[in-house]
Amino acid sequence: MKKCIPLLGLMIVLTGLMSRLYAQADSVMAKNISNEIMLHGAAYDNLRVLCKTIGHRLSGSPQQDKAIAWGKALLEQSGADKVWLQPVMVPKWTRGKESLRIKNEGKWISIPMLSLGNSEGTNGKTLSAEIIYFDNMDALKAAPEAAVKGKIVFLNYAFRQDFLKTFDAYSDIAAYRFNGANVAAKKGAVGLIIRSLSTGLKDVPHTGSMRYEDEVQKIPALAIGNSTAAALGDWCKKGKPVAELRSECGMKEMVMAYNVIGELQGTQEGYLVVGGHLDSWDVGEGAQDDGAGCVQSIEVLRTLKKLNIKPKHTIRVVLFANEENGMKGGLAYADSAKAKNERHILALESDEGGYTPRGFSLKMTDADRATIKTWKNIFFPMGVYDFEEEGGGVDIGPLAKQGCRLAGLMPDSQRYFDMHHSQNDVFEDVNKRELHLGAVAMTTFIYMADQYFD
Amino acid sequence: MKKCIPLLGLMIVLTGLMSRLYAQADSVMAKNISNEIMLHGAAYDNLRVLCKTIGHRLSGSPQQDKAIAWGKALLEQSGADKVWLQPVMVPKWTRGKESLRIKNEGKWISIPMLSLGNSEGTNGKTLSAEIIYFDNMDALKAAPEAAVKGKIVFLNYAFRQDFLKTFDAYSDIAAYRFNGANVAAKKGAVGLIIRSLSTGLKDVPHTGSMRYEDEVQKIPALAIGNSTAAALGDWCKKGKPVAELRSECGMKEMVMAYNVIGELQGTQEGYLVVGGHLDSWDVGEGAQDDGAGCVQSIEVLRTLKKLNIKPKHTIRVVLFANEENGMKGGLAYADSAKAKNERHILALESDEGGYTPRGFSLKMTDADRATIKTWKNIFFPMGVYDFEEEGGGVDIGPLAKQGCRLAGLMPDSQRYFDMHHSQNDVFEDVNKRELHLGAVAMTTFIYMADQYFD
Repeated sequence: MKKCIPLLGLMIVLTGLMSRLYAQADSVMAKNISNEIMLHGAAYDNLRVLCKTIGHRLSGSPQQDKAIAWGKALLEQSGADKVWLQPVMVPKWTRGKESLRIKNEGKWISIPMLSLGNSEGTNGKTLSAEIIYFDNMDALKAAPEAAVKGKIVFLNYAFRQDFLKTFDAYSDIAAYRFNGANVAAKKGAVGLIIRSLSTGLKDVPHTGSMRYEDEVQKIPALAIGNSTAAALGDWCKKGKPVAELRSECGMKEMVMAYNVIGELQGTQEGYLVVGGHLDSWDVGEGAQDDGAGCVQSIEVLRTLKKLNIKPKHTIRVVLFANEENGMKGGLAYADSAKAKNERHILALESDEGGYTPRGFSLKMTDADRATIKTWKNIFFPMGVYDFEEEGGGVDIGPLAKQGCRLAGLMPDSQRYFDMHHSQNDVFEDVNKRELHLGAVAMTTFIYMADQYFD
Repeated sequence: MKKCIPLLGLMIVLTGLMSRLYAQADSVMAKNISNEIMLHGAAYDNLRVLCKTIGHRLSGSPQQDKAIAWGKALLEQSGADKVWLQPVMVPKWTRGKESLRIKNEGKWISIPMLSLGNSEGTNGKTLSAEIIYFDNMDALKAAPEAAVKGKIVFLNYAFRQDFLKTFDAYSDIAAYRFNGANVAAKKGAVGLIIRSLSTGLKDVPHTGSMRYEDEVQKIPALAIGNSTAAALGDWCKKGKPVAELRSECGMKEMVMAYNVIGELQGTQEGYLVVGGHLDSWDVGEGAQDDGAGCVQSIEVLRTLKKLNIKPKHTIRVVLFANEENGMKGGLAYADSAKAKNERHILALESDEGGYTPRGFSLKMTDADRATIKTWKNIFFPMGVYDFEEEGGGVDIGPLAKQGCRLAGLMPDSQRYFDMHHSQNDVFEDVNKRELHLGAVAMTTFIYMADQYFD
């Protein structure tokens, strides 16, 4: 044993030295990645093309098909060893014409509105009914059916500005949009109006996904902007406003779409995924949600290729189909990975906007999270410091069952819900440096994960 | 001694317990501050009034006088125990008319430009001269006088996009604007054109301060936008473009202005300062630079008063005069503090924009910095994590000589130099949540400093 001690000491010193050298090499690589993207990054210009020549691209829309072709061509240009389309059936929902008028104190007023995604319309008729007001979901649940029956429920619950991370406020309010119609319909309501899930000060309606439960009446559901909601709240307190709703919205047949996949082949078995979703809502340009995540993911591949970094494991960029109103792309990717027995080491999604990065949410073992925290000195100069949150992303979520580690880029969230799912989610909202800094963080993260996870 | 050990143990336990209770009480207070500002904050609406009813407010301008009256009234409304104006003589520089035309390949083109602040004009004449191109200051310094004499120097050095913190890039390039004219004039140049100190993609010129050295010819100096600079660079490589400059800019007499000061009186001796600067450049609305810092500082006072927090030390809000082109306000405040023997414990400045806060730069002893780092759990939920940088602020800088600790709010910096000192520094660039979150961080910081420093 005594003889072992000097040897052990030497080994500890050598290990310390090696790990310092490794850390130094990683820092140098992070700086190379950063210089490449901040000086020569293509993500911003790629996003301009997606937003300005294609625009929004809801599942099943003609723009979705154009976006798929754009993504495939761009991955090829960006240096992928292999690019292909993975077929997936997606729901096709269309908006059509829609209008809302409200009569208050004898006067009809046209109200800016957006039907919620997946909502049914009014079957070619005009739906006329009195509006009944509720501060929140509990108040609606507590109301007697007789009071609600035949009326249009107005849920005036506001996005909470006191949450400092806006995604916490989004979690708090999400059920109003996703499930409000079911709660209202069970009480006999004939329609639902919600206050938009938004921090925005402008009177812009924000759409987003809802889903009808089986066996529940499919009543039309829509959102109005924040200041209109405040006004409607006042009207309801003073009188009994009546609404006239016309909407051609409705779910159509399932149609074929594709996940767009490009890969850099590794020398070892195993896969890393980096992705965003290619579909968007049918207003604005889907710039922050989630054109940003798509072009950043492609930028990861372009940068690794440009810097001649040969990954150990195969790195796949996946532009997922149908995140917004069905999650079919994410499910199809995970199903295929399972069927082909492809071992997925880690998946990273960017789907919280292209604002300045601040951290990565993680879903993995504590030991793996601890490994990532040892990288903190590499990320600190990028302003990336937060590895505490539990997370990942909607599209990569289904991979967790296969033991895949999950990570989600967490950008600064303060402005995100000003424009999310609205006409204001346009290219002009995206800042080039912020978008590219996110791509720097993602590329570095994938580089590190490829080195240190197996 | 033996008897002492249990007592010592008890004391350690009690001290630990007390410090945990204190930390808990501080977290509760931080949450109260946060709720007050995020739900009922006035800073954003105050900034709208400053920007939209007064607008930009260069030292010595009529708008400066209006801004002083606005600041005084607002501090009174916000609950200050005492508000007063501290006189200070400031330089009055005026822009007047200015124009730049450049002849390239026989064709005259009008170029968007802004004279640098404090620059002299062309004395009612048209200055016509050939342009001589330099990549950077070293190239200019190395050039023979004969080559430069009688020409207009064009320094095409670009803001470095590879620096991840944009203020590092600003430090790198600052001498081009501040001192470029002196270097050029010493070589016999008759004028200076610089590429704007800006990350902006739009072709907008950005002004900012320069200063003539004594004994050096006061040649006119101006900035052009990034894409014009790129074009002019090309023209200079291919030919010998000629410029015609007319400018009525010039320094006038010194005039009287005021620092606007409001205070919450403490129960103990000693002062804490929180401030921003009230003056701005004469383009845009001085919204981020530094209307934001002014309304945030006033919000600190309003919030402490509203929450009925009685400070130990007297807390002063100072809206400094003349930061942009003379620093006279900061110097006058420090002179007065010294003359009155007012012991200043800490001064905090917000002058890097109203974007999401990320940290505080500090100028103080290592022990004091270590104290502040023990507050990190209080700041982490606000996204404030960086206490590593050396800093403070231009206006509070002179207080350091009196032993005053300095701190500067560090917001996210990615967008700042897109609009800094340009027509794009307007209210619309400011996001309410970001501005208010900065005020939350500042109020909490002042609250903590009042508790833990003496």
